[in-house]
Amino acid sequence: MRPSVTLLESQRIRAEIRAKRITGTSRGLAHGFVQTNLAILPKAYAFDFLLYCNRNQRACPVLEVTDPGSPIPTRLAPTADLRTDCAKYAIYRDGRREEDRLDIVDLWRDDLVSFLIGSGISIDAALEAAGVPTHKDRWVLRTTIPTEPAGPFQGDLVVTMRWLTAAQVITATQVTARFPFNHGAPIHIGDPAEIGADLAHPLFGPPVPPTPAGIVPAYWACGVTPQSAAENARLPLLIAHAPAHSFITDLPASALSSP
Amino acid sequence: MRPSVTLLESQRIRAEIRAKRITGTSRGLAHGFVQTNLAILPKAYAFDFLLYCNRNQRACPVLEVTDPGSPIPTRLAPTADLRTDCAKYAIYRDGRREEDRLDIVDLWRDDLVSFLIGSGISIDAALEAAGVPTHKDRWVLRTTIPTEPAGPFQGDLVVTMRWLTAAQVITATQVTARFPFNHGAPIHIGDPAEIGADLAHPLFGPPVPPTPAGIVPAYWACGVTPQSAAENARLPLLIAHAPAHSFITDLPASALSSP
Repeated sequence: MRPSVTLLESQRIRAEIRAKRITGTSRGLAHGFVQTNLAILPKAYAFDFLLYCNRNQRACPVLEVTDPGSPIPTRLAPTADLRTDCAKYAIYRDGRREEDRLDIVDLWRDDLVSFLIGSGISIDAALEAAGVPTHKDRWVLRTTIPTEPAGPFQGDLVVTMRWLTAAQVITATQVTARFPFNHGAPIHIGDPAEIGADLAHPLFGPPVPPTPAGIVPAYWACGVTPQSAAENARLPLLIAHAPAHSFITDLPASALSSP
Repeated sequence: MRPSVTLLESQRIRAEIRAKRITGTSRGLAHGFVQTNLAILPKAYAFDFLLYCNRNQRACPVLEVTDPGSPIPTRLAPTADLRTDCAKYAIYRDGRREEDRLDIVDLWRDDLVSFLIGSGISIDAALEAAGVPTHKDRWVLRTTIPTEPAGPFQGDLVVTMRWLTAAQVITATQVTARFPFNHGAPIHIGDPAEIGADLAHPLFGPPVPPTPAGIVPAYWACGVTPQSAAENARLPLLIAHAPAHSFITDLPASALSSP
């Protein structure tokens, strides 16, 4: 008889991704496990990028940085391989998104450093447990709030906007404030013009419709911000997760919660 | 008539330090302003050190990193100069503390990067406001809890131990938990043997006496940890604040508090 092995849901999903049986969005998968944005870049740029993230911690909570050349995120998912276990990768050269790939095995180099950066997707479970819906009426938007640069990395803050009722905003503020290492409380509520939120051009999908009556938009710093800054830096090579195809870790989202 | 200028208490104290009229401990000075540990090292080691701090964030909350060659902490104290505004510096060469200095003007180099790391001293005001005494019965101790290494930086966790009553431990836990970016809640309470705390050899001062009846020792991750790791790395040059001579910033400690 073979010993039975119990896989975490996160491990089971990653195995499906590695086998290329799952290639779609990570949203809704392995609910309750932390998902991270991914930025993989040459070591020559790693200090400036880590510094950029440190200077803009609200948007860029760095949850793990691998050793140069190692594709194994030993803290967050020790059985994973970052070359194969993200459902879709976006490959940037000189700041342009040149192609998407299902794996990056043949692009791997010994000087690549991988950054795993907290994604707002991780706290969806906590919000839903508190009665705040998360699966629709949310957008990723550019703003005109400058971030603090480091080396070649710079750009404006990217936010996640959610349409909520006033009561939901109050609840969502309390829930997300308990996650100081995963974007924390909203950076703004109400008028999008005050932060220069670009409703006409969300990063994904069609323009944002007019705000319905009874809705108070709420805005959180978004983990797409560092990816945007990395694009602006026009590195010779930058590998990121494709939008909405985050990397799924073995860390329970509740582990990021503070009292 | 000259215009009158109102200085912050932190700015006034730094001016006294720069003029070398204050050369003693920073403990108790500019109460309520964040104080930081200081680690200044060549850029060649900066990525590994920043990564070490990121991997051991509880002990090493990096509050600011200056651009290489710049001695100005533009975020935390824009009128300060890190070459003159710490009351005493410890100079390490190849891991040995070779000398202490009142300024480091003639040691400055264009490739030096300064790390300002949160110090537990900063939250003394919040603890005292909650009725927890902070000015005595505290020690800085080595433990046998390993930190996560990065490059040449490694070593065991250093903790601050405070002698408190049970009621004070409960209060202090709640108060410090509100400072997730400044060491946060205790990492342990009670038996020092469980974390291998070295009571016989505190980093400063005589051995710790036996625990009095009615006292519950409580332990917080300490910002001396990264300095200890930097010493272990035996860098050709490392400049740190001398123990208990932290750098005083203009940031109110309450600004580090989360809800």
